[in-house]
Amino acid sequence: MAMLLELSVPPAVPYLDGPPTPLAFYRDWVCPNRPCIVRRALGHWPALRKWSLPYLRAAAGATEVSVAVTPDGYADAVRGGRFVLPAERRLPLGRVLDVLEGRAAHPGVLYVQKQCSNLRAELPALLPDLPPHVPWASEALGKMPDAVNFWLGEAAAVTSLHRDHYENLYCVLSGEKRFLLHPPSDRPFIPYELFAPATYQLTEDGAFKIVDEETTEKVPWIPLDPLAPDLARYPGYSQARALRCTVRAGELLYLPSLWFHHVQQSHGCIAVNFWYDMEYDLKYSYFQLLDSLTKAAGLN
Amino acid sequence: MAMLLELSVPPAVPYLDGPPTPLAFYRDWVCPNRPCIVRRALGHWPALRKWSLPYLRAAAGATEVSVAVTPDGYADAVRGGRFVLPAERRLPLGRVLDVLEGRAAHPGVLYVQKQCSNLRAELPALLPDLPPHVPWASEALGKMPDAVNFWLGEAAAVTSLHRDHYENLYCVLSGEKRFLLHPPSDRPFIPYELFAPATYQLTEDGAFKIVDEETTEKVPWIPLDPLAPDLARYPGYSQARALRCTVRAGELLYLPSLWFHHVQQSHGCIAVNFWYDMEYDLKYSYFQLLDSLTKAAGLN
Repeated sequence: MAMLLELSVPPAVPYLDGPPTPLAFYRDWVCPNRPCIVRRALGHWPALRKWSLPYLRAAAGATEVSVAVTPDGYADAVRGGRFVLPAERRLPLGRVLDVLEGRAAHPGVLYVQKQCSNLRAELPALLPDLPPHVPWASEALGKMPDAVNFWLGEAAAVTSLHRDHYENLYCVLSGEKRFLLHPPSDRPFIPYELFAPATYQLTEDGAFKIVDEETTEKVPWIPLDPLAPDLARYPGYSQARALRCTVRAGELLYLPSLWFHHVQQSHGCIAVNFWYDMEYDLKYSYFQLLDSLTKAAGLN
Repeated sequence: MAMLLELSVPPAVPYLDGPPTPLAFYRDWVCPNRPCIVRRALGHWPALRKWSLPYLRAAAGATEVSVAVTPDGYADAVRGGRFVLPAERRLPLGRVLDVLEGRAAHPGVLYVQKQCSNLRAELPALLPDLPPHVPWASEALGKMPDAVNFWLGEAAAVTSLHRDHYENLYCVLSGEKRFLLHPPSDRPFIPYELFAPATYQLTEDGAFKIVDEETTEKVPWIPLDPLAPDLARYPGYSQARALRCTVRAGELLYLPSLWFHHVQQSHGCIAVNFWYDMEYDLKYSYFQLLDSLTKAAGLN
């Protein structure tokens, strides 16, 4: 598999000192499918100046939002041999803020993270605080974002390692996010297994139980935790090269389509991301081929 | 190998009605590595109005140029079990024009085609007739061309099937070029074999002999003629899909890096091409992987 290593991956995620031109963004980052962090990308957003937990309470405290609730902070992760989705609760945003500010308790770990364009769908009061898209990215990609998502959660809330078919522009407004990334070319070293899908259910006494979905269709997911990889079980992962970066308030991470990512955050971090559908072009063919080869080689 | 077919290849080379913007050129053609023909791309070049065989004689008839001479029109092709380079002659351009216009005879087939930026190096008198580069392409690619080549030859002069590590902007000024193209994803179906290198030598009596090079290093080359493929010998080629196109005066073919191409022309066709070094990015990794797999599979 030495040939796979020809895709050069930098030792760290590079920084840009400001937004790139649309052409430079496409040529230097999107087309070669490489991540970068753009500083001073959100300088003119009112959200960068205004957003804080008290501001969110004032602006939208009474608004009900979808909240993912898990016993340990891991939504969409492998637990007990199943692929377990979070319990989903509808709570006033103010209730989530109470928990984040230590004024109230709630069982488990809370994460406002519903990826259905929840900023537009659930928190319209916040829309005036930021542009509806990232103009240089929209011009570069020749399209508007498919979704604009709002993220707010506790320090323990984690997004488990996975990848998406989206060009992802991840903007931190307050606090910081910590990303652990793997390029798509690490696919042969990242294990997938099939798991029966299940969902956490929050009982009335505040305990969690795992309830199997009715479907018999199993879900391919990554059982490995990159923060504590079980190398005895997944020795191939030792050949993967994780790229770590911290994205701070005012910065924008360009997270290229099909890159694996695992995400942690500071307590109460507030972020917004823009998802643009990827082009199913050469890079897609390339990574599909890698995927097929990995399976054909019986690596997983 | 069905998975290779995921790279969608159009049934014909698409036309653009005018030069694209640099961003559109990069996003829609360079990044996905797809060819297109641009109409009205050379409208403002004096060369398009002026260049003809009599004009070339008037402007540079006395200038010596490098001319590839072969017995059958095939330069850089497999003949007699060898990879045979053309005889190279230095002739006044007027002498080549005499042959093209039927006023004089010369053994073999002549082709002014030296790809060493021969327009700049050998025919500086023609430089004022065209821009030094293609601005929208240079801006898109973020660099200037590595070479600007001038092409003039007889109807029998053929460029055998091969590929280059260049983004190629091929501009026809007079007459027409006929391209037969294969996408890089056809690599598994296109045979390569190793051949001892040799060169044609033109004897005093006008005959050609093949003279082996002193090196013992063999050259990988494509023994197949796509105009008359020997499918009994190379059955895999029946799975390849040739794209054919004719590029007429005033049109520019964007021939993407790593695409296989075989080229014919009308008698006395005059053309110029710009070679921009390719980016060794994802597409390079992808096609290198295809190359490695093809070899590993023993396909050739």
